[in-house]
Amino acid sequence: MSEVSPGPGVAEGIPFVISGPSGTGKTSILRRIVERDPQVNVSVSHTTRPPRPGERDRSDYCFVSEAEFRELIEKRRFLEWAEYQGHLYGTSREAVAEPVRMGIDVLLEVEVQGARQLRERLPDGVFVFVLPPSMEVLERRLRGRGSDEDGAIRSRLSRAHGELREVHIYNYVLINDDLERTVVLLEHIISACRCDRDRVLPLCRDRFDFG
Amino acid sequence: MSEVSPGPGVAEGIPFVISGPSGTGKTSILRRIVERDPQVNVSVSHTTRPPRPGERDRSDYCFVSEAEFRELIEKRRFLEWAEYQGHLYGTSREAVAEPVRMGIDVLLEVEVQGARQLRERLPDGVFVFVLPPSMEVLERRLRGRGSDEDGAIRSRLSRAHGELREVHIYNYVLINDDLERTVVLLEHIISACRCDRDRVLPLCRDRFDFG
Repeated sequence: MSEVSPGPGVAEGIPFVISGPSGTGKTSILRRIVERDPQVNVSVSHTTRPPRPGERDRSDYCFVSEAEFRELIEKRRFLEWAEYQGHLYGTSREAVAEPVRMGIDVLLEVEVQGARQLRERLPDGVFVFVLPPSMEVLERRLRGRGSDEDGAIRSRLSRAHGELREVHIYNYVLINDDLERTVVLLEHIISACRCDRDRVLPLCRDRFDFG
Repeated sequence: MSEVSPGPGVAEGIPFVISGPSGTGKTSILRRIVERDPQVNVSVSHTTRPPRPGERDRSDYCFVSEAEFRELIEKRRFLEWAEYQGHLYGTSREAVAEPVRMGIDVLLEVEVQGARQLRERLPDGVFVFVLPPSMEVLERRLRGRGSDEDGAIRSRLSRAHGELREVHIYNYVLINDDLERTVVLLEHIISACRCDRDRVLPLCRDRFDFG
């Protein structure tokens, strides 16, 4: 994050952008991660889509009207935003910059279109693409969710095929064939990124002379 | 590894080069890793240094005479070799290429000078630098080892200070202040590298069209 600068000896948090086709299990993965690692936050996105049963405002999403969303765009409050299936989704700058400055890693769950915008705006971000075990399994999952009509499901699948072509901008790829295993792998990725040279050296320059 | 090419759908193993000043605990870390992960091998280096008490030939090192070592250099059998504290140390090509081709990750414990040579010869390698908690702790560890004379210890420490300047060519940095914790972090790095995009995509191209 170039916008914020931590004090000496304080490491910034890392933004982890988790993306991939709709229905690959991103939300479930992130929910488990934050339950288990207090050093990680999930950034809450804004959306104009109506809440699904059980979803809570400011916890699952900040649910706002289209007028409110458009005002936030005007005020340049979004790091990325995109229209998806007729609704607007966005990640506010504040939701990332604040925890990162405090040294807390942030997980961002964003649509593939939004991740493309973030790739430029979060040069230090770590990008993780979540794949289903196969496209057939993805279709079964979307139908099993039961909240979408056939037309919407077909539209999501067609979009998913296109989204696969974006995988090349990501650092890591997870095939979510087992939720628990995928969660563990994402935890390992987070842990490994905390050992990245560029992250560790600033923390120990007082003890070692690296020239 | 550009020299070997695996069959379709078979992932190559990853070479992990573990280096850092003498006395930071590299050998203990690697010993624990292979005990716990059967998918990982430790490459056995060649050396002309005499065995320390308890060290076994072909397990800790391939102990060879200087004439034998020089012959292997002539035959271009080494990926890297270096003189260190009056003895020769080297990593044979075979010790890396064979397991990598079989899909087995290889850990290479090498001196900093050797790691510099490997950086060019193993472009797909992952380089991990192991630091002591502080240079004072390093000195205590070297003295506690009891196998070296004061002059050798001072020479190692002076070399260690210079070696810190090489940290910039490494991907990851581990501060070994707790062996068990360091082993876990290295396991996470290994696990995360297995999720690297360039490693995962070739394994699932039969199921997905990435364009």
